[in-house]
Amino acid sequence: MDIPEKLSSLGWTLPQPPKPIAAYVPSVRIGDMLYVSGQLPWRDGKLLAVGKVCSSVAVELAQTAAAQCAVHALSVCGGELGGDWDRLVRVVRVGVFVQSDNDFYDQAKVANGASELLVQVLGDSGRHARAAVGVNALPLNAAVEVEFLFQVR
Amino acid sequence: MDIPEKLSSLGWTLPQPPKPIAAYVPSVRIGDMLYVSGQLPWRDGKLLAVGKVCSSVAVELAQTAAAQCAVHALSVCGGELGGDWDRLVRVVRVGVFVQSDNDFYDQAKVANGASELLVQVLGDSGRHARAAVGVNALPLNAAVEVEFLFQVR
Amino acid sequence: MDIPEKLSSLGWTLPQPPKPIAAYVPSVRIGDMLYVSGQLPWRDGKLLAVGKVCSSVAVELAQTAAAQCAVHALSVCGGELGGDWDRLVRVVRVGVFVQSDNDFYDQAKVANGASELLVQVLGDSGRHARAAVGVNALPLNAAVEVEFLFQVR
Repeated sequence: MDIPEKLSSLGWTLPQPPKPIAAYVPSVRIGDMLYVSGQLPWRDGKLLAVGKVCSSVAVELAQTAAAQCAVHALSVCGGELGGDWDRLVRVVRVGVFVQSDNDFYDQAKVANGASELLVQVLGDSGRHARAAVGVNALPLNAAVEVEFLFQVR
Repeated sequence: MDIPEKLSSLGWTLPQPPKPIAAYVPSVRIGDMLYVSGQLPWRDGKLLAVGKVCSSVAVELAQTAAAQCAVHALSVCGGELGGDWDRLVRVVRVGVFVQSDNDFYDQAKVANGASELLVQVLGDSGRHARAAVGVNALPLNAAVEVEFLFQVR
Repeated sequence: MDIPEKLSSLGWTLPQPPKPIAAYVPSVRIGDMLYVSGQLPWRDGKLLAVGKVCSSVAVELAQTAAAQCAVHALSVCGGELGGDWDRLVRVVRVGVFVQSDNDFYDQAKVANGASELLVQVLGDSGRHARAAVGVNALPLNAAVEVEFLFQVR
């Protein structure tokens, strides 16, 4: 799999893996499981979507933001694997938190932004178990936060 | 263990395991761990409890809805195991999200609906680690969403 | 590692590990992974911080409450290991839920209370993957709830 090229063909740029931030780290690997920290939708140094869905952030933008979180997670994964993408076996679990208005109930649609990106890039090995929920607030007022569990070798 | 019969004796019907939905799947198995996606309280094609607890949904109904989510998770598990329930070793972790009013703090009581169902059906191997939290919104306005981690063989 | 002494030098007391509560248990061990249930910030029989951050609970107090949750998780871990702390390999994942006002976005700062305590006590093996989110309500009106995944042997 040439993940960076595949992402590029889909219009995405694989960012540099983030550096450790203080007391927590981008990912922890235990055996063949890689736990990736909750990702925010950073792009070019800014959050792609800020505020609550859908009063402040449209569903379509929130979907793109969720996909951006998935791209960051792939970057973290690639960093852990030293760029050897053949060692990425599959996506196991995705946890999606959508900053939601009290009457917004389309969290699954927002989460599809991340889920579909993973399948576009990784094919069947991108399919995963998922929990998608709404929350009333997220760090830095990000519209979405997504955490990931990968199987690697 | 005859799980379907045990469920039946408790007044529950084991539904057909759900089909894969788009980019995410009902469960992913890695070795002896089975990650089950967040379940909503579907029954007979409708959500059993819709809205926030407790202004729109009574605690007792939310408990039943949480139990319904657990029944669905057992269904997913049974599907993965080809109906060979002896291969279900135990419940490892349950994550419960309760759509809550801002001043509702009995999420643990709601979550007990799922936890107690699992112990009623599975005995000691139904006991699990758990996180139960409130959220302001859930997909399709469901009152509860519950995700599960099982050990299987 | 003498965890109780290290905690003591930092001004914390290691509490007795909690007893099983009804249908869920403080932790479940599968192989070398220890899943610890969501912890509330109990101290001396009372919750250390009650209400929403930051209208009812200051960020600093919420940080201390998150650290208290981490101390409880260490207590659970120590109980599982029979007090043999050398069998605690590392912290893998921490999930932090902060009961938040709708316009509070410093969940990461609150979560640092737990993350930094773990690193202070465990050094590099305390570093972990993390998801930190806001929620509108938590059990018993606790300001924070934190769940943990440890690697043990």
